[in-house]
Amino acid sequence: MDITQQNKNYRYANTFRRLLRRNARPNIRKILSRTHPADIANIFAFFPLDDKITLLNCTNDNEIRAEIITNLQLHNAAELISRLETKLAVDIICEMSGDDQADLLGELDEAHAAEIIAAMPVEESRDLENLLNYHEKSAGGIMNPDVLAIHSDSTIAEAIKTVQEATDVDMFFYLYVVDENKSLIGVLSLRHLVTSKPNILVKNIMNPNVVSVRTDEDQEDVARLVTRYDFLAIPVVDDTNTLVGAVSVDDVIDVISEEATEDILKMAGAGDAPTDYSSLMKQTLSRLPWLFAALLGGLVVALIINYFNDTLIKFIALAGFIPVISGMAGNVGTQSLAIVVRGLATRRINVRQIWKVIGNEILVGMVLGLIYGVLLGAVGYWQFLGNTPLAINLGIAIGISTISAMTISTLLAAGMPLFFAKLNIDPAVATGPFVTTTTDIIGVTAYFLIVNVMI
Amino acid sequence: MDITQQNKNYRYANTFRRLLRRNARPNIRKILSRTHPADIANIFAFFPLDDKITLLNCTNDNEIRAEIITNLQLHNAAELISRLETKLAVDIICEMSGDDQADLLGELDEAHAAEIIAAMPVEESRDLENLLNYHEKSAGGIMNPDVLAIHSDSTIAEAIKTVQEATDVDMFFYLYVVDENKSLIGVLSLRHLVTSKPNILVKNIMNPNVVSVRTDEDQEDVARLVTRYDFLAIPVVDDTNTLVGAVSVDDVIDVISEEATEDILKMAGAGDAPTDYSSLMKQTLSRLPWLFAALLGGLVVALIINYFNDTLIKFIALAGFIPVISGMAGNVGTQSLAIVVRGLATRRINVRQIWKVIGNEILVGMVLGLIYGVLLGAVGYWQFLGNTPLAINLGIAIGISTISAMTISTLLAAGMPLFFAKLNIDPAVATGPFVTTTTDIIGVTAYFLIVNVMI
Repeated sequence: MDITQQNKNYRYANTFRRLLRRNARPNIRKILSRTHPADIANIFAFFPLDDKITLLNCTNDNEIRAEIITNLQLHNAAELISRLETKLAVDIICEMSGDDQADLLGELDEAHAAEIIAAMPVEESRDLENLLNYHEKSAGGIMNPDVLAIHSDSTIAEAIKTVQEATDVDMFFYLYVVDENKSLIGVLSLRHLVTSKPNILVKNIMNPNVVSVRTDEDQEDVARLVTRYDFLAIPVVDDTNTLVGAVSVDDVIDVISEEATEDILKMAGAGDAPTDYSSLMKQTLSRLPWLFAALLGGLVVALIINYFNDTLIKFIALAGFIPVISGMAGNVGTQSLAIVVRGLATRRINVRQIWKVIGNEILVGMVLGLIYGVLLGAVGYWQFLGNTPLAINLGIAIGISTISAMTISTLLAAGMPLFFAKLNIDPAVATGPFVTTTTDIIGVTAYFLIVNVMI
Repeated sequence: MDITQQNKNYRYANTFRRLLRRNARPNIRKILSRTHPADIANIFAFFPLDDKITLLNCTNDNEIRAEIITNLQLHNAAELISRLETKLAVDIICEMSGDDQADLLGELDEAHAAEIIAAMPVEESRDLENLLNYHEKSAGGIMNPDVLAIHSDSTIAEAIKTVQEATDVDMFFYLYVVDENKSLIGVLSLRHLVTSKPNILVKNIMNPNVVSVRTDEDQEDVARLVTRYDFLAIPVVDDTNTLVGAVSVDDVIDVISEEATEDILKMAGAGDAPTDYSSLMKQTLSRLPWLFAALLGGLVVALIINYFNDTLIKFIALAGFIPVISGMAGNVGTQSLAIVVRGLATRRINVRQIWKVIGNEILVGMVLGLIYGVLLGAVGYWQFLGNTPLAINLGIAIGISTISAMTISTLLAAGMPLFFAKLNIDPAVATGPFVTTTTDIIGVTAYFLIVNVMI
C-alpha cells in the first residue's frame, strides 16, 4: 500500500477544496493543465459529483476534460457524463480514443447512449457503433481502432512521414504493414524505423511473421499472447485478415487485473463484482445463489446429524467436534482450491498434469490430516476420559475422522477445478462455498460412521 | 482456457518426441531456431529433464539457449542450469539480460550460484552482484540494468546513432537523458526521435518531467505507477538520482500477476505459493500455521458447545443447525472478505471510505441474513413441531441466530482488512481461516445464548 501517494492525493484534494471555496478558477485551470490526468482523476475521487463538474468546468479544453474522464473509474465517468449537456458530452467524447468511447457508452443507460451517438459526427458514430457490436470481453471489445498502418510498397521515409502526421493516434510502438486489400502482412517496429535508411522499402525489412488475433478472440487469450511474447501491442484483424485495430499492453494489464478479480470473487462465491455501491438489490442478488447452494448443503448436513441423534445423545460431547472437524477440512480444502485455481489461471499448473496435482494435494492433505488428527484425537480422548470406558475408541474415531475429512477435502478441492478445466469450463466456478459444503456433508457422514464403528 | 493452444503445444511436443527418438538433431535445430523461444519453453514443459538437455544440445547457439531458458518457469530454469557444466552454464547466462541473470542466480543454491559468478567475466559478474544486492521485490530487484541513456547536449542524429549501436539492449521504448554526472534529467520517446530534425539538441525536445523510482521502491508501487500513467517502462535511479536501470512493462505484468496470486493464497490461508512440487515438507509447513489457528478456534467452539450441553441434550436437533448457521455465516463472510481485499488491492476501495464500505457490507449481510434466517427459522420450526410446544420459540431463535451470525460475519470480514490497511499492514493477512473461525466462535455463542433466552 503506497500510503504516501494516498496522502499526497489527500493533500492535493485539500488544495482543490480551498481553491473551489475561493472560486479561484484560473488557479484550478493552471493545475488541471499541468497535472497528469491520471493524478487528477485520483483526486476527483475525493469530491462529490457537483464539485467534479465545477472542477471540470474550470478548463475549456475538451481534450484535458476527456483525458480526466477517461482516467476515472468507469461508473464514475458514466455518472459524470450523464450530468453534462449532450452537446458538451459529445464534444468531450469525440476527443477520446475509440476503445474508451465504447467503454463509456457501454456503461451509460441505453437511451442516453443512443442520444449521444445520434448527436456525434457521422464518421465518429459509425466507427463507434462498429466497436459497440463486439463482445466487451473480446479482442474487438478492448481494441483501439486507431492504428498506424502502412502499405508494404512504401519507403521508410514515407513511413516516417506517416508517423509524423498521425497526431491523433495515442500510443503506438509498431507500424503494421498491409497490402492493397488492407490485409495485414507484416509488422515494423519503431526501432527498425529509426535505424533504417530512408529509401529502403518497408516490405524488405518488415517482419512477415506477425502474430495477430481475430476480433472475436477472448480477451484472456489476447492477454496471454501479449504476455507470452512480451508484445507492446497486438494487431486485431477481421475474418478476411483486414487490419481493424490493435490491443495495447496497457489494456492487457487491465484485463489481467480484471480477470484476477473475477477469479477471486468467483472462488469466494461472490458472483460478479459489484462495480459500485449504488444498488443493494444488485449486490444481494449476485451473492444470493451460492449461499442458497450452501444452505441446501447445510440442511443435508443437519439431516445427517439428526439421523445419528441417538449416538449424539449418548456422547453429547461429540457435538462439539462437528464444527472443528468440518472447519479443518473446509480450511485445508480452501487452500488446495486457491492453489489449483490460481495455478491453472497463471499456467503454473497444466491440465495434463491432473493426476500429479491431485496426488500431491491429497498427500499434503493426508500429512496435515495426520498432524491435526492426532492432536484432535488426543483432545477427544481427554474429553471423554472421565465419562466413559470408550474414551480411547472415541478419541481414535475423532482422529480418523479428521484425517479422512481433510484428505477427502483436498481431493475434492483440487479435483473439481481440474475436472472443470479438462471440460473447458472456467475452473473458478468450483467455488469455495461448493467445496466447503460438499466437504461438510462427506465429513459429517464419515465422522458418525467411524464413531459408530468404533463404539 | 485456450485449449487450442495447449493442444497445439501437445502436438508440437509429439513432433519433438518423434524427432528425438530418431535422433534427428538437424531437424530439431531448425525448429529451435525458427520457433519463438516462448513457444519452445511451453513445449519443454512436456519433457523430462534429460530430454530438455538433449533438446538444448541440438543447437550450438547460446543466445537461443539463453532465450529458451529465460522463458521457462524459474524453478525449471534453475533445475536445467544446475545440470549443465559450469562453463556452458556461464556462457548461456552471459547471453541473458541482467534482470534475468539475477532472477536465475537467486533461484540456484548458493554454492552453485557463487561458482557461476566466479567463472563469469569480471565486468558481467560485478554488474550481477550489484543487482543481487537489491531486494528481489524492489525496483532494483526487477529492473534491467541495460538502458539507453544519452547526454542532454547530444543531437538527435547522435541519439539515433546510439539506438543503432545498442544491439544488446533488448526492449526499449524511451531514451533516458542524463547530465554529466549521469543524473536522470529527462526522457525522450522513440516517437520523438523519429519525428525530429537531426540537428536539434536532445535537451530542447526532451520531456524534463520524467517520473522515476528509487531502487528500493516496492515492486507493487512500481507496477502501480506504470499502470497509472500507461508507461512502457520506468527509469530506476539510486540515492543520488543516477540512472541505474529501468523496469519495463512486461516485468510489471509479471508483478501484477504475482501479487494477485499472493493475495489469493494469503486469503485462503495457504501462505506462500509453493513454486514447485518437489518438497512435501515445504508445502506442509507453509499451510500449517493458519490451520493451527483454525484448530485453536475450533476447540474454543467445541468448549462453547460443551458448555451448553444441557440445552443440547434437551433439544438434540439443535445440534444439526450448528454447521448450517456457521456455514452460512462463514460463506457470506468469505464473500465480503474477497470483495474488500480485492477492492483494496485494485484501488476500487479507498481506506478513507472505511465506514461507507463496512456499512454497505453489513447492510448486505443483514438482507441476506434476513432471507436465510427466515428460511432456516421455518425449517427449525417445522423440525421441532411434533416434539415440543417450544417449536415456535426455537424456530425464531434459529432465525435470529442466522441473521446475527451473518451480519456479524460481514462486519468482521469487511472490517478486518480495512483495519489492517488503515494500519498500513497488508490487508490480505485477514485470511479466510481467521474470519471463518472468529465467525464460528461468535456465531455459536450467539446461537446458544439466543436459544436459551427464547426457551
